[in-house]
Amino acid sequence: MSNRPLSRAWHLASRPDGLIRPENFALRESRAPTPGEGQALVRIIYVSLDPTDRIWASAREQYMTPVDIGEVMRSVALGVVTESNQPGLKPGDIVYGLLGWQDYVLVDKRSPVMKVERRPGVPLTAQLGLTGFIGITAYVGVIDILKPKPGETMVVTTAAGAVGSIAAQIGKIMGCRVVGVTGSDAKCRWLLDELQLDAAINYKTENVEAALRRHCPKGIDTVFENVGGAQLDASLALVNHFARIAVCGLISTYNTEAAVPGPSRFTQVLMHRLLIKGFIGGDHPERFAEAQDALAKWHQEGRMAYRVHIEDGFEAIPHAVNLLFTGQHDGKLIVRLAPEP
Amino acid sequence: MSNRPLSRAWHLASRPDGLIRPENFALRESRAPTPGEGQALVRIIYVSLDPTDRIWASAREQYMTPVDIGEVMRSVALGVVTESNQPGLKPGDIVYGLLGWQDYVLVDKRSPVMKVERRPGVPLTAQLGLTGFIGITAYVGVIDILKPKPGETMVVTTAAGAVGSIAAQIGKIMGCRVVGVTGSDAKCRWLLDELQLDAAINYKTENVEAALRRHCPKGIDTVFENVGGAQLDASLALVNHFARIAVCGLISTYNTEAAVPGPSRFTQVLMHRLLIKGFIGGDHPERFAEAQDALAKWHQEGRMAYRVHIEDGFEAIPHAVNLLFTGQHDGKLIVRLAPEP
Repeated sequence: MSNRPLSRAWHLASRPDGLIRPENFALRESRAPTPGEGQALVRIIYVSLDPTDRIWASAREQYMTPVDIGEVMRSVALGVVTESNQPGLKPGDIVYGLLGWQDYVLVDKRSPVMKVERRPGVPLTAQLGLTGFIGITAYVGVIDILKPKPGETMVVTTAAGAVGSIAAQIGKIMGCRVVGVTGSDAKCRWLLDELQLDAAINYKTENVEAALRRHCPKGIDTVFENVGGAQLDASLALVNHFARIAVCGLISTYNTEAAVPGPSRFTQVLMHRLLIKGFIGGDHPERFAEAQDALAKWHQEGRMAYRVHIEDGFEAIPHAVNLLFTGQHDGKLIVRLAPEP
Repeated sequence: MSNRPLSRAWHLASRPDGLIRPENFALRESRAPTPGEGQALVRIIYVSLDPTDRIWASAREQYMTPVDIGEVMRSVALGVVTESNQPGLKPGDIVYGLLGWQDYVLVDKRSPVMKVERRPGVPLTAQLGLTGFIGITAYVGVIDILKPKPGETMVVTTAAGAVGSIAAQIGKIMGCRVVGVTGSDAKCRWLLDELQLDAAINYKTENVEAALRRHCPKGIDTVFENVGGAQLDASLALVNHFARIAVCGLISTYNTEAAVPGPSRFTQVLMHRLLIKGFIGGDHPERFAEAQDALAKWHQEGRMAYRVHIEDGFEAIPHAVNLLFTGQHDGKLIVRLAPEP
């Protein structure tokens, strides 16, 4: 075993209270395990950092089981197979799924991972965003839940974020007037100049409701919601009859486990016969192929811009994750643990 | 004109603040108008009193336009045609729709009324509930939105109310475990003994969340919501993944126009990928015939109990409407203005 490669892992040591602190995780080193019958060893190249990490690290009621204290922190990641006794996987294959905050991990046919086929014009990092769960989530939320019609008005919160930016661009492709809400003037400019949104609102410097009122003269038909709280209430002030709200995230509530007041305009659900649907992209595996094909095609056609924000090095992971909550990142946040093969 | 019949009408005189007060309406008398070309005169027999009356009397944002100050108060009602120049309507025909708080009203082909065919075993008063908008609302909410599966657990709030009692019975017919929430022990007994619900909770004497926890050992799959506020939060504590919530009413919020905190467990929308859908029965006219046929058939088969609470006399209307908010009524609340023809 002594000439097996070294493998580091971040284990959950305590539950965060507020923002994640590096002390919530303990770094442990071991030798990479040798794959047994039916197993493959994966070296992780990119770890995806996503707002849902904050949910998994908590003990709150959630859509999967929480990560237990002592367990390796769960995360979406992409890696390369280095050794394999698993039929269908050979060294050099790229896999993607729930691999965790670690250098090496064993997988087998029951593991929540999929093999990634490289697509021309689509970089490997895009598999963590555009054609990964991020893109699938945006696609399912917009196409299957919001069902936008040309000419309708769509609002997207965290519109410069990984999911939001894809959702907003799908809205444009579907022929909607798209208004994005984000947290800096630079992000607003990116939304307007690069993503060609119809309007962008900086929630840190503008009154969101007043700005929405100005930018949505025909009211709001669909909302791709990633934030909740005051931003959701601002949209609720302007919804049209039969508006639809896809709840993809409620990031304003993740750093607390206290009861958070729900939208104060909840009565709009009745007054405007709203549809509100919570969802995660992983709910609909039967939609993955269509979503990935459509997103890759739009990207290849130059209709789907895409940004990654790469932090480097294993040690950076528990620090970098907070960028998601402070907004100090620019695009899909990933940490590179090793060079691309 | 002097030998035309006398017609009384309650006009909205001021917006209610809290409960409706009789002073919010002004009684005016006139002579019944003579129908012109294409018009028919209807004598109103039964006025339906519904929680939505409180919404219509307010200036708040709502699903129809508010009733203007000075206008005859809007309401669902049933009447008999006394004179007619309208093709398709003849004296003696029964009509049902938005006729208002008045003795006589002119209708034409654009009026929001429909002709009622009497069904054997279904009394005329049932047209104001079971086979009227009330029953249609329950049917659409349960069948089209909640889509209950046999063995699932359904919670119905205001389960002894006009809409709730029908929704709860449809849930039983669909094979669900149905738990009703209501406001008195007598109503609980009626839910258990007559409607054969699986459990009933008196929200005035029990902790609703604790009681739901006891009565829903497999969690909650569907909620037919008429109340909102604390009762909705209690259900949200126990929802299963992919639970559905049909928001038919939010009666806990109708007597105030202040912002009401939304459900404090709104994050469950995401954590359990909930569907929340606000609706009104009138949204889907294409569903009326199926709903009315099914409800009448269930009633004729003895599977759909139905109660009416009749108050007598035109003057009673603006007093009786508050029974809906104090819960001091027993079944579908109607006011009889004249004997059945």
